[in-house]
Amino acid sequence: MTAPALHPDLATLALLLGEWRGEGRGQWGEGAPFAYREEVAFRHSGKPVLAYTQRTVALDDGRPLHAEMGYWRPVPGGAVEVTMAHPTGFAEIELGTVEGGRLRLATAAVERTPTAKTVTRLERDIDVDGDTLHYVVRMATGGGAAVWHLEATLHRTQATGDGR
Amino acid sequence: MTAPALHPDLATLALLLGEWRGEGRGQWGEGAPFAYREEVAFRHSGKPVLAYTQRTVALDDGRPLHAEMGYWRPVPGGAVEVTMAHPTGFAEIELGTVEGGRLRLATAAVERTPTAKTVTRLERDIDVDGDTLHYVVRMATGGGAAVWHLEATLHRTQATGDGR
Repeated sequence: MTAPALHPDLATLALLLGEWRGEGRGQWGEGAPFAYREEVAFRHSGKPVLAYTQRTVALDDGRPLHAEMGYWRPVPGGAVEVTMAHPTGFAEIELGTVEGGRLRLATAAVERTPTAKTVTRLERDIDVDGDTLHYVVRMATGGGAAVWHLEATLHRTQATGDGR
Repeated sequence: MTAPALHPDLATLALLLGEWRGEGRGQWGEGAPFAYREEVAFRHSGKPVLAYTQRTVALDDGRPLHAEMGYWRPVPGGAVEVTMAHPTGFAEIELGTVEGGRLRLATAAVERTPTAKTVTRLERDIDVDGDTLHYVVRMATGGGAAVWHLEATLHRTQATGDGR
């Protein structure tokens, strides 16, 4: 497949393009803290949207933990719109901003399947500095306040994000 | 990566696993009919959920058309729950049933970003017969009735759907 040209509207999100790997840690409620290995990819097809895929596995035994997939759309003026699907039965809209390497996103709307996890809000603070990406995710369930849930540092392992 | 064992709860959806390719055609409103080439993958990681990725390109010049990604969850009794993200700014929950090779899904809830396409409902009729998959997608925008939009026949090109 020929690598498509980057759509000019993707300029503000181009710093996310490529494949990323790293390690993170998390905790939820009274549960035991856990550590994970993560793979993330941001790709484009020539359209003004990034396709995002992510998965994590446990650092200790490699068992699959979370995964998520969706699309990141830049909006003129520094806004960002994200559509995201989760394997635990919820799909959401996240809205936020990008200023240089600083992205801040939060759930604006969420819908759940009948058997879904009752996640009601995610907040993502993402900071990109060159080929290093650090994020914190805060999560709320059942309508409560979002609290610290995940934090990881990733390193870019492949620069291009062409194709799917 | 070692291929994980299929989770027993995935039995009813196992006939979707693998990679699929084929051609389809579509139309929307008064727009010109179009033809497309499609790639679909259903993968699993050992958990009771399928990760679904899809994209289409125009049959005439290969330009990217639609794409979508999400997760398909079987529920005891033949129900299916889908979380889906679309690059056009909406995310949705689809609910339906699977009986043998016959899947019927429809949007149960949809959320949109401020600049999204105003899709309000998708209906998917999917029929799998061996390594052939045929689907029809009906779509509604602005709250109207769902009407015929896409139809394609895909062939399984790779049987296993292990890993991401």
